[in-house]
Amino acid sequence: MDKAIFMDNAATTRTDPEVLSAMIPYYQESFGSPATLYALGSEAKQAIELARQRTADLIGADQKEIFFTSGATESNNWAIRGVAEAREDKGRHIISNQAEHHSILMPLKHLQKRGWEVTLLPVDADGLVDPAAVKAAIRDDTVLISIVHANHEIGTIQPVEEIAGIAREKQVTFHVNGAQTAGHVPVDVARLGCDLFSLSAHKFYGPKGAGALWVRRGVRITPLLMGGAQEKKRRAGTHNVPGIVGLGKAAELARGNLENESRRLTDIRDYIIGRIESSMEDIRLNGHRSRRLPNNVNFSIEGIEGESIMLSLSYPTAKGARPVYISTGSACVSGTLEPSHILLALGLPAELAHGSVRISLSKESTREDAEYAVKALAEVCERLRAMSPIYKRGAKQCASGSDGRDCEAAS
Amino acid sequence: MDKAIFMDNAATTRTDPEVLSAMIPYYQESFGSPATLYALGSEAKQAIELARQRTADLIGADQKEIFFTSGATESNNWAIRGVAEAREDKGRHIISNQAEHHSILMPLKHLQKRGWEVTLLPVDADGLVDPAAVKAAIRDDTVLISIVHANHEIGTIQPVEEIAGIAREKQVTFHVNGAQTAGHVPVDVARLGCDLFSLSAHKFYGPKGAGALWVRRGVRITPLLMGGAQEKKRRAGTHNVPGIVGLGKAAELARGNLENESRRLTDIRDYIIGRIESSMEDIRLNGHRSRRLPNNVNFSIEGIEGESIMLSLSYPTAKGARPVYISTGSACVSGTLEPSHILLALGLPAELAHGSVRISLSKESTREDAEYAVKALAEVCERLRAMSPIYKRGAKQCASGSDGRDCEAAS
Repeated sequence: MDKAIFMDNAATTRTDPEVLSAMIPYYQESFGSPATLYALGSEAKQAIELARQRTADLIGADQKEIFFTSGATESNNWAIRGVAEAREDKGRHIISNQAEHHSILMPLKHLQKRGWEVTLLPVDADGLVDPAAVKAAIRDDTVLISIVHANHEIGTIQPVEEIAGIAREKQVTFHVNGAQTAGHVPVDVARLGCDLFSLSAHKFYGPKGAGALWVRRGVRITPLLMGGAQEKKRRAGTHNVPGIVGLGKAAELARGNLENESRRLTDIRDYIIGRIESSMEDIRLNGHRSRRLPNNVNFSIEGIEGESIMLSLSYPTAKGARPVYISTGSACVSGTLEPSHILLALGLPAELAHGSVRISLSKESTREDAEYAVKALAEVCERLRAMSPIYKRGAKQCASGSDGRDCEAAS
Repeated sequence: MDKAIFMDNAATTRTDPEVLSAMIPYYQESFGSPATLYALGSEAKQAIELARQRTADLIGADQKEIFFTSGATESNNWAIRGVAEAREDKGRHIISNQAEHHSILMPLKHLQKRGWEVTLLPVDADGLVDPAAVKAAIRDDTVLISIVHANHEIGTIQPVEEIAGIAREKQVTFHVNGAQTAGHVPVDVARLGCDLFSLSAHKFYGPKGAGALWVRRGVRITPLLMGGAQEKKRRAGTHNVPGIVGLGKAAELARGNLENESRRLTDIRDYIIGRIESSMEDIRLNGHRSRRLPNNVNFSIEGIEGESIMLSLSYPTAKGARPVYISTGSACVSGTLEPSHILLALGLPAELAHGSVRISLSKESTREDAEYAVKALAEVCERLRAMSPIYKRGAKQCASGSDGRDCEAAS
């Protein structure tokens, strides 16, 4: 079997060898807890403070405002529940949108059950939130707005600067989930103008189990994990030193080559989009065509299940064929049969949402791999459609949203 | 400088080489997310399910009832808040004790601010909770009892079986924090009779950043980390695959040699206690003499600060001397000047609580190292006492609690 092509990097990435090398000494040599004052502890303490600086540098933050977590889910949960609880004297209304990640939507749902009110704004056919709608939704008792920086499934980059301006004007705390942007596109939290920013190491070649929440000085937030005095009493628990060191190293590596790599991936992304659109019919690009993550491609493919496509690509039967790993819907809900709530929020009918595939690139992705993947995708879809009882060529259900055409149900 | 002697293993342990070797492939080879259905994901999925089985086996649990977390702080926070929120229709009263870990006390304090009532029972001079007091504290609206299995600072093992019997009789959910016992003493959750059990990998030679909460089938608990469908929708977030694999391997290794190792460490522990008691004066053993973790020694040393002792031992000035790493108070609050709330709960005056040291052993600890450490401790204390403006030989403030003598303030 030839070398596999991994194009599911929005789910998780391979840990960079330099990142792993940086982590190893903290398992067996400098394995002390940073909370302790003796030499072994100091080594660990210095290591996590260097990681804090590097993480801060990646997003233009002050290192004193970086708090380490176990990943973006914890960061997002913390931001939502922590600000809601800290600000409940002011009000209990929160604004977000229908196409958010579950790690935002679920804590919001939890708060709703406990007396908070939540406004989930719609998104347009490209997945964009309208800043004017955010402004209109703000009430006297609104304490928090949470909008993802870029959608993990369809790659659409939100107008967060504009929303930040509105939030600031109305003195509402603004959280941005940057799990898909940190390490992939230039991020400067000062320029973004938000108050909290979540990130996750394993999305940019760092280890799983490590992330951070940036909390602007002065922002009120109660801890989510409570106990020891770690992280200035804001996030308890023995530091995951190797994980944090890995996050820091990944941040340093990403920052060193951010603009070049972002451009390189954008080229490959657009190559893939162009090739799919020119070689396949009855397909729809999901997400905005240009306001889009450099490494994200998402298509709905009429008449077949995304899961069948994904599995066929990952277990190729032809001799010498290379497995291609992509995803369908959101990796977090894979294994369930629910169609992606994000694709439904775009206005896609459930059948099209079921037939979606996401191709997400990494620094390992090459133009040659992209070419191979697109060819394999086209062949697999051709084969699956030939067997599909529901696919009728040309019975168009869909058109790309950013061309101004909306989805229509097939007649 | 000679090889350091690390005797602060209740804070954290060196990751076992076999554990690290087991983890490595999941950073760069089988780095997929277990939530995905293709081969890379399946490899990760199989790995975490094996880890789940091994973790379950360590504590006599059903693997279906093991939920992976980022460590004991998360497990403890989750148990407290999750059960409180799930059961609030029944009542809002929780029972715990004054000598608990901060990762129990802080979420309890948080709940108190939000309308829950908390009864913190006292402990006796040895740190024991009285089961009769637990029984007496149970009210109609009591929904949760949380008692640590063994105290992280003084090593006292609580009568959890007895308390479990009471909890079961009264139909109150019972959580046990086993961060210090799992992997160190035989644990069988069925025999213990509790409903939830927390554990942490890095306390028994696994990696930092990985732990678990065992939740007996049928126990109602809301998630703490919400989002994706991982862990049967009970704990969201991309699995920390290498960390979980490390936890599983550490559990397997610990289980293989649990009784022998527990006996070996008990011998070294009692040797250290005996040597300190025979060679030093004006000292007090903290914690129960026999109902005690095999790897825990804790003494109050009159007239000097625990921090000075710790630092002097860790940075020895004599040529060729070996650094000895121990702790003072709880590692989690090191860096603060507050005396340990646990030692205060035993009835110790603040001065004695300040002068406490904890020596905690690991599988690397030898009798020879113990001998060296005790000698170094005695020398350091002699030297510091000679410089101490407050130490008066024989002006006894303290006596060991388990001898039935109580602490008295020095006149």
